[in-house]
Amino acid sequence: MIDLACRLADAAGTVIRRYYRTPFSVDDKPDNSPVTIADREAETAIRSILAAERPDDGVVGEEHGTTNPDADWTWVIDPIDGTKSFITGRPVFGTLVALLHKGVPVLGVIDQPIVGDRWIGVAGRQTTLNGKPISVRPCPTIGRATLNTTSPDLFGQHDFTAFRRVADEVKLTMYGGDCYAYGLLAAGFVDLVIEAGLKLYDYAALVPVVQGAGGIMTDWAGLPLNRDSDGRVIAAGDVGGYTEALRRLGVMPIG
Amino acid sequence: MIDLACRLADAAGTVIRRYYRTPFSVDDKPDNSPVTIADREAETAIRSILAAERPDDGVVGEEHGTTNPDADWTWVIDPIDGTKSFITGRPVFGTLVALLHKGVPVLGVIDQPIVGDRWIGVAGRQTTLNGKPISVRPCPTIGRATLNTTSPDLFGQHDFTAFRRVADEVKLTMYGGDCYAYGLLAAGFVDLVIEAGLKLYDYAALVPVVQGAGGIMTDWAGLPLNRDSDGRVIAAGDVGGYTEALRRLGVMPIG
Repeated sequence: MIDLACRLADAAGTVIRRYYRTPFSVDDKPDNSPVTIADREAETAIRSILAAERPDDGVVGEEHGTTNPDADWTWVIDPIDGTKSFITGRPVFGTLVALLHKGVPVLGVIDQPIVGDRWIGVAGRQTTLNGKPISVRPCPTIGRATLNTTSPDLFGQHDFTAFRRVADEVKLTMYGGDCYAYGLLAAGFVDLVIEAGLKLYDYAALVPVVQGAGGIMTDWAGLPLNRDSDGRVIAAGDVGGYTEALRRLGVMPIG
Repeated sequence: MIDLACRLADAAGTVIRRYYRTPFSVDDKPDNSPVTIADREAETAIRSILAAERPDDGVVGEEHGTTNPDADWTWVIDPIDGTKSFITGRPVFGTLVALLHKGVPVLGVIDQPIVGDRWIGVAGRQTTLNGKPISVRPCPTIGRATLNTTSPDLFGQHDFTAFRRVADEVKLTMYGGDCYAYGLLAAGFVDLVIEAGLKLYDYAALVPVVQGAGGIMTDWAGLPLNRDSDGRVIAAGDVGGYTEALRRLGVMPIG
């Protein structure tokens, strides 16, 4: 399965490199997020391989919907996470490939096809970056933390207020990055990532990568992430910083 | 001079690649911005070459101060623009090398040593990215613009209010990127960059790159950037979008 996940990322990367920094049209989806022919073709390339090799598995993709929704094993695909970075020519987007067993992520690949960075996370194994084992770094208190979030505009007003309670106390807040931020947290360069409004295909691949590097990744209520999570996500390298941040987020699960 | 500027960037890149994603300590400067041994050594490498080949020229560097302040020709160096990206392992920082004649930028190099992207801008010539000529793209009105700024936290309250007047009307706002954003504007992937609090070494190299690609880069009052500018910067690919944005910024020069 790990080998297959890597071949899926390879297939997407071949498509993406062909379109990167070339002129292409950008369409708006109903939620106003941008999508391009590269997103669609990269997901199609992945789905073709899965249809041939794992026809009974489920597939959930950002661009082409859901296949076999009741399967025990489900591949969750975001062909280009960080489409805004992709369309502006910044090499900090990524292809995300996750495998879920009964709704729980057990395998995740984050692949950056321009720089050539690949993170592989597998339940029960140590995460690797470009083949080398990686670990989170200590961050016992949020006053020493580097915090990352993709954009302040991704939060609703209530969630942004909660985010600011953490951001006001950390050492450094960085914006931008999408999936890249979680990979860098797993590699010990970032201490906290806090986001909201994520979809299953945005976070599923990140969970095994972060956990396999010794990190923690949950929703804002501290609950494990699965296919039913509400899209509010926190990742941390150290349980100390995690606990302090979670207390400041101070929210209860939706519903 | 162009060849020399490229060799200066090469020298910095050799240092930076050695430290990228390795453990090193991060110090805080008096203004709370981070600095590392890589910043200092990269600037030292550049200054050694200038001292040997251009001993009478001025040098202004972010880390090691000013030499020959009264020279007609002055090299302005930021060894790592985007140190926060560098220390968190994100390949979207850059080495900036500018040459000023009597305070006006006439040559600029933006170099990303991990990805291998190099922009070269020279007064009166077309800007290149990795050796190929590049141009800005049309953006006649800000409603169609992709706007970039490094971080909302870089603005004071008054400037942030002005920035929001533009951000509220554009199609897409992106965060992160530092010098990279200006390079991508010159290459036709971003329409507007608006920032405040920049130092001479942050913007000097960007001016020839943006202008040589057909873009506009001024302060928020619409005045040309030189060594005495107030650090509020706007870059645009199209005079239409530029004019609309400038009107919304609606500020007068300081002092």
